[in-house]
Amino acid sequence: MSKTKERMNLAPMLKPKSVAIIGASNNPEKVGHVILNNYIEGSFEGKIYPVNKDSETIMNLKAYKSVLDIKAPIDLAVIAIPAMFVPQVLEECGKAKVKSVVVVSGGFAEVGNNELQEKIVRIANKYKMPMLGPNCLGVMDTRAKNDTMFLPTSKLSKPTIGGVSFVSQSGAVGSTVLDLIAKEGFGLSKFLSYGNAAHVDEVDILEYLMNDKETEVVIIYLEGAKRGREFFEIGKKISKIKPVVIIKGGTTQAGADAAHSHTASLAGSSAAYEALFRQCGFCIAKDLDDLLYFGKAFASEVLPKGNRVAIVTNGGGTGVLTTDAVYNAGLRMAQFGKESQKALRKLMPMTVNVRNPLDLVGDADEKRYSDALSIVSKDKNIDMLIVIALFQTPGANEELSGRLVEFKKETNKPMIVISAGSKYTEERKDFMESQGLPVYDSPAAAANALAELLKYAKYRKGVI
Amino acid sequence: MSKTKERMNLAPMLKPKSVAIIGASNNPEKVGHVILNNYIEGSFEGKIYPVNKDSETIMNLKAYKSVLDIKAPIDLAVIAIPAMFVPQVLEECGKAKVKSVVVVSGGFAEVGNNELQEKIVRIANKYKMPMLGPNCLGVMDTRAKNDTMFLPTSKLSKPTIGGVSFVSQSGAVGSTVLDLIAKEGFGLSKFLSYGNAAHVDEVDILEYLMNDKETEVVIIYLEGAKRGREFFEIGKKISKIKPVVIIKGGTTQAGADAAHSHTASLAGSSAAYEALFRQCGFCIAKDLDDLLYFGKAFASEVLPKGNRVAIVTNGGGTGVLTTDAVYNAGLRMAQFGKESQKALRKLMPMTVNVRNPLDLVGDADEKRYSDALSIVSKDKNIDMLIVIALFQTPGANEELSGRLVEFKKETNKPMIVISAGSKYTEERKDFMESQGLPVYDSPAAAANALAELLKYAKYRKGVI
Repeated sequence: MSKTKERMNLAPMLKPKSVAIIGASNNPEKVGHVILNNYIEGSFEGKIYPVNKDSETIMNLKAYKSVLDIKAPIDLAVIAIPAMFVPQVLEECGKAKVKSVVVVSGGFAEVGNNELQEKIVRIANKYKMPMLGPNCLGVMDTRAKNDTMFLPTSKLSKPTIGGVSFVSQSGAVGSTVLDLIAKEGFGLSKFLSYGNAAHVDEVDILEYLMNDKETEVVIIYLEGAKRGREFFEIGKKISKIKPVVIIKGGTTQAGADAAHSHTASLAGSSAAYEALFRQCGFCIAKDLDDLLYFGKAFASEVLPKGNRVAIVTNGGGTGVLTTDAVYNAGLRMAQFGKESQKALRKLMPMTVNVRNPLDLVGDADEKRYSDALSIVSKDKNIDMLIVIALFQTPGANEELSGRLVEFKKETNKPMIVISAGSKYTEERKDFMESQGLPVYDSPAAAANALAELLKYAKYRKGVI
Repeated sequence: MSKTKERMNLAPMLKPKSVAIIGASNNPEKVGHVILNNYIEGSFEGKIYPVNKDSETIMNLKAYKSVLDIKAPIDLAVIAIPAMFVPQVLEECGKAKVKSVVVVSGGFAEVGNNELQEKIVRIANKYKMPMLGPNCLGVMDTRAKNDTMFLPTSKLSKPTIGGVSFVSQSGAVGSTVLDLIAKEGFGLSKFLSYGNAAHVDEVDILEYLMNDKETEVVIIYLEGAKRGREFFEIGKKISKIKPVVIIKGGTTQAGADAAHSHTASLAGSSAAYEALFRQCGFCIAKDLDDLLYFGKAFASEVLPKGNRVAIVTNGGGTGVLTTDAVYNAGLRMAQFGKESQKALRKLMPMTVNVRNPLDLVGDADEKRYSDALSIVSKDKNIDMLIVIALFQTPGANEELSGRLVEFKKETNKPMIVISAGSKYTEERKDFMESQGLPVYDSPAAAANALAELLKYAKYRKGVI
């Protein structure tokens, strides 16, 4: 497949001052209607041009028969029309000097229609017009209020503004993960769903995100990278600047076959990819959960200086399981310094054993946590903090979650919380996460997230 | 430690007709108050006797200075008083022919007070009075409305009535998991938190649950089994009758040390325990999440006849990831039969590739799922079904979740759902789970749960 090697400028696609929606419609069932509606309701501040050859006005906006009729600069054209009409419309975009296009329409290589796909790539190349897709959800930029998603907002919670950019070859994984990012409460910078990767691909996107100041963390769902060599080069470069968490679809033969039928990707050998990702310094997620959990940790944590973990808990058994998880994740339990031990012994009731994990026992309240954390967080023998707060107990309440959030702001060590439970716990969890304190459901999830922070810290320092 | 080897009759403890609450109090801060209040508000149908040497009436009930003053049969005495007073009160329980006791008080072997613990064991033995604890949350029996838990119900959602019995050495793990069982929406039969296991231990409890008709599945959090040989014997027996899911605290040296300081357990070698559990036919959970996920699968699924999985999805990428997860869990992807392929080709739109995973593509609605599932579920080449329903898409809605629930009722194959997302998805998930259709967040969680069903099916058939 022919492909330009020039750097693609994705700025007009992500931060457009003007958008043409080709296939915009008054019919609420149409994808073009949903997209246009999102631009209007999402308070996009640039110009919006509906394009439809059959309508004079759409949703109270003047409609155009073709982009050629607009006679004003167009940064982004979103194309949502049947596949067979895409080449002609794309040709018009080129002539109208449209700066970038997103083709959401399906019906190309993913259903065997390779010829049609090659045709649109040739047009995009001819006009040097970066084209995302086809067969994709397009882009979202939370700060620019730019959003080409055609999924109903009633069913998909949108993340808040933040520093994580999410790149997904799959639209389904994309929309699910966006919804989960909103639930896990960390902020999003940009989302790019690039589908068949016919023109703009993962290499172009990583190049852009590497230099994007708003992007602090990148998370990716990848089925296959067509430009392996370039992917490796850009991967190594970006990891020196910001962390990349990756999940690969098609790591088994059956999965690879399914990926080929999905986005026409050649998923390639799993072991080869894993080795490549490790050399890139990427953080590898084995399951969707991990992608979220690792992304959440990178989004709100400083990098640790070493592998020694302190656990402070109000549940003994959960402390035991978390100790196991810390070791299984390749970390180790800190030994409290002599002074900390003395200070703790002085402040803690006799039912508390002064050791790590520090079991504050079931009647611990905000005061006991505060006393313990103010000592432990200053101990030089400790690199990372896991606070287990089981909100089923009488002493664990709003005051405690509030105090933990303050502690997170004060400490210069990575600090995460384990809280698991139903309604009351979920409320406390949502509160803490909204304040930038990441909360995990299970010991393994928490310990594995910290281990990834450490691996990345070592990569940055050149230790591994 | 001396210990009776006679079988303990736990029926009076779980299904008492009369309960004495020793340490009952009018002071809402006291544990004895919370317990008494739970009995009153939980509409327990038996007799309730508050015991407190300082009060005439407690919460409008006549109070007794000692169990000896009650002069009526007492099935269960719940003891919530300082440790040092427990021996005397226990002696009185023995004299009053109390049939069982739960000692929730802490301050025994877990803080090094071995002598006091041995003392109460001698009394329990002398009167052949099964004693649970000390240092525990006690018991819950959902059908008998018997509940000795002293945690605020506002912070701990109680599970509905069902077939899973949960045994936890740790109170903290116990209360968290109960809260999570309520959230995951599967029903509970009995809960036993047995703390220091000074008298009634895991062997006694498994013996009881093995013969308990209301218990269909057992899940256990264990730190250490004192009677290894008997535990192994009863484990092998119970697994021939009902599945047991186990999580072991202290599988690493550091975790084992923490466990010793928690419930005075000698956690023992991890590898030895794992081998023992496997020989018992137990399903081993490596993390708290697994305990819930596996328990949920056993609670609502029939056992599979083979390892061939079909995946039906409205998201291609999620189908790819789930295919990977199926293989990584040791299962394999079914090959649809010739007839199914023909029937599917006839009913599905051309955008649908007729293969496994069956990607119904993003615009799939209830009708397309129904058509696909009615064919796939009857195919003899398929042993288990994973339905991926991503509710972020327009076509996936209330009708779809309703139809999936109906399908679950009709099919004789294990069938589980993967749905991940925020508010709207959570609502659909809660609905499906309330109707006995288990829903998982992630591909790995779903595939691993099915793999455990198969392992257990093979164990029951004597294949492994």
